[in-house]
Amino acid sequence: MAVPALPLLLLVAGGLRAAERSGGSSSAMEELATEKEAEESHRQDSVSLLTFILLLTLTILTIWLFKHRRVRFLHETGLAMIYGLIVGVILRYGTPSTSGHDKPFGCSQDRPFTTLLVNVSGKFFEYTLKGEISPGKIHNVEQNDMLRKVTFDPEVFFNILLPPIIFHAGYSLKKRHFFRNLGSILAYAFLGTAVSCFIIGNLMYGVVKLMKLMGQLSDKFYYTDCLLFGAIISATDPVTVLAIFNELHADVDLYALLFGESVLNDAVAIVLSSSIVAYQPTGENTHAFDAAAFFKSVGIFLGIFSGSFMMGAVTGVVTALVTKFTKLHCFPLLETALFFLMSWSTFLLAEACGFTGVVAVLFCGITQAHYTYNNLSVESRSRTKQLFEVLHFLAENFIFSYMGLALFTFQKHIFSPIFIIGAFIAIFLGRAAHIYPLSFLLNLGRRHKISWNFQHMMMFSGLRGAMAFALAIRDTATYSHQMMFSTTLLIVFFTVWIVGGGTTPMLSWLNIRVGDHVPSVEEMNESRWLYFRVGVDPDQDPPPTNDSFQVLQGDGPDSESRNRTKQESAWLFRLWYSFDHNYLKPILTHSGPPLTTTLPSWCSLIARCLTSPQVYDNQEQLREEDSDFILNDGDLTVTYGDTTITANGSSGPHTATTSLDGRRTKSSSEEALERDLGAADHEVTSRGTRLVFPLEDNA
Amino acid sequence: MAVPALPLLLLVAGGLRAAERSGGSSSAMEELATEKEAEESHRQDSVSLLTFILLLTLTILTIWLFKHRRVRFLHETGLAMIYGLIVGVILRYGTPSTSGHDKPFGCSQDRPFTTLLVNVSGKFFEYTLKGEISPGKIHNVEQNDMLRKVTFDPEVFFNILLPPIIFHAGYSLKKRHFFRNLGSILAYAFLGTAVSCFIIGNLMYGVVKLMKLMGQLSDKFYYTDCLLFGAIISATDPVTVLAIFNELHADVDLYALLFGESVLNDAVAIVLSSSIVAYQPTGENTHAFDAAAFFKSVGIFLGIFSGSFMMGAVTGVVTALVTKFTKLHCFPLLETALFFLMSWSTFLLAEACGFTGVVAVLFCGITQAHYTYNNLSVESRSRTKQLFEVLHFLAENFIFSYMGLALFTFQKHIFSPIFIIGAFIAIFLGRAAHIYPLSFLLNLGRRHKISWNFQHMMMFSGLRGAMAFALAIRDTATYSHQMMFSTTLLIVFFTVWIVGGGTTPMLSWLNIRVGDHVPSVEEMNESRWLYFRVGVDPDQDPPPTNDSFQVLQGDGPDSESRNRTKQESAWLFRLWYSFDHNYLKPILTHSGPPLTTTLPSWCSLIARCLTSPQVYDNQEQLREEDSDFILNDGDLTVTYGDTTITANGSSGPHTATTSLDGRRTKSSSEEALERDLGAADHEVTSRGTRLVFPLEDNA
Repeated sequence: MAVPALPLLLLVAGGLRAAERSGGSSSAMEELATEKEAEESHRQDSVSLLTFILLLTLTILTIWLFKHRRVRFLHETGLAMIYGLIVGVILRYGTPSTSGHDKPFGCSQDRPFTTLLVNVSGKFFEYTLKGEISPGKIHNVEQNDMLRKVTFDPEVFFNILLPPIIFHAGYSLKKRHFFRNLGSILAYAFLGTAVSCFIIGNLMYGVVKLMKLMGQLSDKFYYTDCLLFGAIISATDPVTVLAIFNELHADVDLYALLFGESVLNDAVAIVLSSSIVAYQPTGENTHAFDAAAFFKSVGIFLGIFSGSFMMGAVTGVVTALVTKFTKLHCFPLLETALFFLMSWSTFLLAEACGFTGVVAVLFCGITQAHYTYNNLSVESRSRTKQLFEVLHFLAENFIFSYMGLALFTFQKHIFSPIFIIGAFIAIFLGRAAHIYPLSFLLNLGRRHKISWNFQHMMMFSGLRGAMAFALAIRDTATYSHQMMFSTTLLIVFFTVWIVGGGTTPMLSWLNIRVGDHVPSVEEMNESRWLYFRVGVDPDQDPPPTNDSFQVLQGDGPDSESRNRTKQESAWLFRLWYSFDHNYLKPILTHSGPPLTTTLPSWCSLIARCLTSPQVYDNQEQLREEDSDFILNDGDLTVTYGDTTITANGSSGPHTATTSLDGRRTKSSSEEALERDLGAADHEVTSRGTRLVFPLEDNA
Repeated sequence: MAVPALPLLLLVAGGLRAAERSGGSSSAMEELATEKEAEESHRQDSVSLLTFILLLTLTILTIWLFKHRRVRFLHETGLAMIYGLIVGVILRYGTPSTSGHDKPFGCSQDRPFTTLLVNVSGKFFEYTLKGEISPGKIHNVEQNDMLRKVTFDPEVFFNILLPPIIFHAGYSLKKRHFFRNLGSILAYAFLGTAVSCFIIGNLMYGVVKLMKLMGQLSDKFYYTDCLLFGAIISATDPVTVLAIFNELHADVDLYALLFGESVLNDAVAIVLSSSIVAYQPTGENTHAFDAAAFFKSVGIFLGIFSGSFMMGAVTGVVTALVTKFTKLHCFPLLETALFFLMSWSTFLLAEACGFTGVVAVLFCGITQAHYTYNNLSVESRSRTKQLFEVLHFLAENFIFSYMGLALFTFQKHIFSPIFIIGAFIAIFLGRAAHIYPLSFLLNLGRRHKISWNFQHMMMFSGLRGAMAFALAIRDTATYSHQMMFSTTLLIVFFTVWIVGGGTTPMLSWLNIRVGDHVPSVEEMNESRWLYFRVGVDPDQDPPPTNDSFQVLQGDGPDSESRNRTKQESAWLFRLWYSFDHNYLKPILTHSGPPLTTTLPSWCSLIARCLTSPQVYDNQEQLREEDSDFILNDGDLTVTYGDTTITANGSSGPHTATTSLDGRRTKSSSEEALERDLGAADHEVTSRGTRLVFPLEDNA
């Protein structure tokens, strides 16, 4: 998704200014007074926005200094938080507290108006509904103007700041080792998050009970609130750890496991928290267990998740088709703009249909990376990557600096020592109960085991970040939610600073190999290497390393790597891979085997329409650039005719492949798999490979 | 400036959702009802946003089709307007009109509250002030929900959509021929816009008088309103014409004149309209001439303009210094983010200080292009260009499609045939009274005259676009302003469609050479050429053409081009150029002569600090990449010492240059000028050239 981070702030500033312009036919002096006031307000808005921008600028400069001096103990997000904290302290204690001029009006309607017209001495003013506030809080609605100015609508995080972060995560997920570990990643993300949520929720309920016994609780705190806290705090965000992994070139499998888990568990945590909020037992005895409501919540979880997934996948597929069947790649600007708009529309489409935009955007990003990316022109590839990289960078640092600010400027903090200590213990136990048992179970199925030091590292890397914060700040209306928010904030601070700073020592203590898979070419290319170090999640695959390169050569001792691939890919993944390679890739991109050879013969008409001429060119190992669609059309039909005859006349495409390069018959599927996974950026070599999975596999 | 176009819409969607979350401790059922309603509203917002995005997507695809089939009669902005019109018609006549549930409340305060708490059957709701509305309009505040949904706060255009457009214009202004024609461009932009505004204003006042006589005017229409209309409609926007110029490679001088004028006159028109709005005669006989108020307005014009200029220049200079003195260029992501944030802060800084953000952003863009751009890494150069290109493209097409939509969805249109016809005549006369006399006067000073066909083409290219629309929609509270808005809309439609479509015939009819200065290298490079054709204002200089190239070679018949340079550059420009080249460029960038040679000897300490080591390297024609600041420090001092002695010991730097390449002594200044203007992207060759203007110039 594609919504940049900061412009919303401008709108906050812009919105107020509108007030000044509506002055109608009243006298000039009064108009002037109103205008002056509105202008003053606009200026204040600009100043507060400027504060944030200068904060980010300062963060960027300090990051540079740290990178320059190779300081690793503090990550940029931690830095952003510190600067935010400092500004928060200044705003909190350095600005005078002004009281707002609010007054309750009486009215006997039973539903509030969305728009209100107020007649003030003959002039009419238009008001819009901002929301309901609880009666106890009437008098501190507008305590301090400045503090209020720097406080945003929490939905801003979900609608503006998170989408580019999540989209970028999805778009950069096209990693070689991600798909190899897909099963484990899915297990960690789904089962792990659910287990973690449930365990934390129950432990926290115990803590709450204890607090009630000790008289430390001044308001209600239900079991569902505890579960919600569990869902919120289960969203891990090891951005700091991953940055250091990248920098030190730590083990790629561990990186894939951690990154994949963190990306997907954000989605799970969002949907999980929505489902828990939706858990509304019928009748008046609320917050007690109700089987019907429970199953409804489970249904909501599945519905929202699959719906959002579908939305994301569908827009991704539509973008892939559009970029495939138009010659838009001649115009990188148009292509980039289209890509941006389509990705954004995913978010809106999902929200319009009642699904979760952020989740849809994640899957859209993955789909775009998997299919659309291959259809883009070289320039658009770098453009889209860079565009989303900048948006992601700004949004992420903005959220973290806002977090620092919120610790002092948020006006309803409730810090309860028992709850906080309980929460720290609970997240530790929750993470442990999720990593170790799951790893044990996964190791039963995996040939390439997740070793103990990897498990410890994953346990250690359970940082909480932007997603937990955004989920917690979304609803801070009640006492329990305020306490949860304050606790989440502290957990994020602690984990980002302490755990982030301890990553390098931890890696060496756990004997996890670093400097792994560092190609020497890379090292020589200083600028590229530096770029790698700055990008938090560099979305390039590392250049082909020894193993995959040898496979491409078709000789050498490639048995080890091939075996590994086989081990990692379960039957479900193999099934998907074969479907993806034989049908989806040829339909949506210019690569893969021609559909005319993979689809049954009665589909030949559709297959003919959907297969792009490039595929045939690739097929014949002709890598000439096609300049015009019409010119190639004639050749196309001829080529097509030939291919169909071959496919029907012989014993099928498998034989055809075999006859082409008989030496590699037995392992052709693994090779194609290997090539596709390993050489994502080297599409040229993997194009046109027809993959038919030999069912007599010796795995 | 750097605020993307569309996210604001999301905020509109996001803002409403906040209402749902504030439900406190009331009963669950009621909470559910409110939540449902808020969710419904959020969905509707998403749908209306989606409409805009699909509109833009459709526009992009049609643009591609047009480019693909080489259709030139309709520009993308015209296309966006047509699609907007269609959607507007559907929304207007296809959706049922729903009446809002507004009710006036009575209150005897004399000032409105910014926040209102309304007690609705025991529940408190928070409302925020949206603005005053005139008593006559109370009942049509919320006529149609859907129409209201697709109507934005006009300030959104100024705060979100215009800044990236204007910044991009400034950032791409670094054109070879722009500085050559600077004097003429400034004259057209400042004098021309003022003349045009005054003439249109007076003509329209005549039209208004006529309408009053004929009884066609139902409300007040003051002279200041007429002048405001003149200012609004004087902002030309020949985006369509320039796109075609680019495509056909029309005369570069004409291109520079038109582009420069349109960019700068936007700024003039904004400030002019603010000054006219600020014209507030004292006493009760408003809207009569008041000398004090008039001079105050003039003062405001000068104040806002110079203030905004300063703001833009200062942030540009700060960015240049930051990028020069840090090694940020090793980290393109950080560099791009910093560039984006600094450019944005210009806007906020200017708004916070009471100046005009959009104008500040324009000058910031120019400064960034002139200085900062040279300090950026190669990757950041393309990143920043591409980022702002995409933002500009999206914002521009969004504004134009919104214009199409507004023709049917704006609910207070007042179309007066006499006023509209009068306006068309007035803008024609205003443009004529500005182009022809000014060209005549300029031709007195210019050696390279602006020919008649150029003048006719400039006359013809007086399109109105985004800026006129944004200025007109900014205030539609009164009868006169509504009529002005409707008329502006029609003028934009007419000029974009008719004039835009007639550009190609007009060019051939006026015998203006096309295909001029098309380098053959360029033609060969198909992708780059296509890129040129899509980008509306390609921000690259064309590769060095014959004349400048020959100058760089130091031989050949370069007298013609050199003379031209001399002719075009007036003494003011020469003064500025010498100052810029000797002091500003060395201070702010890594190019230019070392400060130690250009500053007096008593400034040597400062000069030493400010001059970057690269300059000395360039000086010695050593183009080796410096990898570390500390390493070079030693060499630096030595080089510095030598240079100072040379500068003091001999008869000055001019001699030093002469001794280096004696053959070109006489023309060294023109050459440096030529090189600097012509080879903007080929900094390497012009770096290290010490320019001292020979005062015995034979011009």
